[in-house]
Amino acid sequence: MCPASREMSNNRGNGRGRPGAACSRGTWHPTPSPSSSSSLQAPAAAPQRRGGAGGRGGAGGAAMAAACPRWRERLFALYFLSHIPITVLIDLQALLPAGLHPPSLTELLQWYAATFKDPMMLQPPEWFKAFIYCEALLQLPFFPVAVYAFLKGGCKWIRTPAIIYSTHVATTLFAILAHILFHDFSKSKHLGPQTQHERLVLLSIYLPYLLIPLLILFTMLYNPYYNHVEKRKRK
Amino acid sequence: MCPASREMSNNRGNGRGRPGAACSRGTWHPTPSPSSSSSLQAPAAAPQRRGGAGGRGGAGGAAMAAACPRWRERLFALYFLSHIPITVLIDLQALLPAGLHPPSLTELLQWYAATFKDPMMLQPPEWFKAFIYCEALLQLPFFPVAVYAFLKGGCKWIRTPAIIYSTHVATTLFAILAHILFHDFSKSKHLGPQTQHERLVLLSIYLPYLLIPLLILFTMLYNPYYNHVEKRKRK
Repeated sequence: MCPASREMSNNRGNGRGRPGAACSRGTWHPTPSPSSSSSLQAPAAAPQRRGGAGGRGGAGGAAMAAACPRWRERLFALYFLSHIPITVLIDLQALLPAGLHPPSLTELLQWYAATFKDPMMLQPPEWFKAFIYCEALLQLPFFPVAVYAFLKGGCKWIRTPAIIYSTHVATTLFAILAHILFHDFSKSKHLGPQTQHERLVLLSIYLPYLLIPLLILFTMLYNPYYNHVEKRKRK
Repeated sequence: MCPASREMSNNRGNGRGRPGAACSRGTWHPTPSPSSSSSLQAPAAAPQRRGGAGGRGGAGGAAMAAACPRWRERLFALYFLSHIPITVLIDLQALLPAGLHPPSLTELLQWYAATFKDPMMLQPPEWFKAFIYCEALLQLPFFPVAVYAFLKGGCKWIRTPAIIYSTHVATTLFAILAHILFHDFSKSKHLGPQTQHERLVLLSIYLPYLLIPLLILFTMLYNPYYNHVEKRKRK
């Protein structure tokens, strides 16, 4: 399922596997071999080569940039892992009939909505409900896949799905954050944020769901490790 | 900027350019040469080879699938081209101060909103306004680039930007269509759709902006021509 990452695991574990590259602890260790020399001549491999050849000296920045971004992958894995119970136990309450979730979880949602003044979760507007449907039907099946890919690390096949996921979620957050910041909640049935401080507190709850997807998006787009997927796959 | 498409143009125009492949009128014409033989042995090139070898006979479907999707590219170019005046002349009226657009355009928007009962364009909710900001700041600069890429054809560098664009726009449309179908417009300041027929008429105005981005997304994801970007780039 993930040949790239399997190679990476081999490289990490025992120094074998595909020669020429190994992702380990955020640095890039080239293992030159005759078979990989032609691909290392390619312009696309140049940053990786520079990073590796430069070691931890002056070109250390380039090495870090070209390396498998492990701390970010772990953060993404944690993000997707934590999203599964949040979606199933909390967010889905806005879609499913009342009484389907245990009373303790319903009370937790009520407590959250009252404390952080989030009327959207108790009485979601139609556009917000559409996003929760997307979360349940499109995102939820993706979460375990993303956990697997980012926990294992180096799974480059996650690039396009992750770009789609992060763009989708960032777009939903643009609308949600605008609603939190500027909507007039005074006529809302459930208590909503009124003061600037209340709006910012509620915004801070949702903000990680914009920032982390944006970090995923930029990692997939600009990190050389994920950017040159097929160029390494072909070897 | 677009070496792939330049090669394609060369192939189309004078039969020269990169040997081995040419995208023309929706079919795939291989021009075997010793220099391209190794790359044609790669599994990724198999559908293209089959299509080309099969000509317009039994393998015609495979040929079409692997070929440069010209009619779709032209449709996408037309879509992005038409979006520029719509965004600048109509949609931006919801953001910019009144009086900045010519009175005739303001009247056109008023007529549209009254005829198709679209209160969102006259008094946009905050979440909808966030999407128009995205349209103005993120999408509008992309439109001429996309027109260029799809009009020229075969520009594979458009794949990732097009995936991001189409995912973003499809997500905005999920919210907009849910709002049109299910929101209670009876308390709206401006006339909104009330009957099922009125909702479906308004929905039909927005629907192409879901369907075409979805077609772009699926083309970028599943059309072999766009799917194997780097695999051909490396030749």
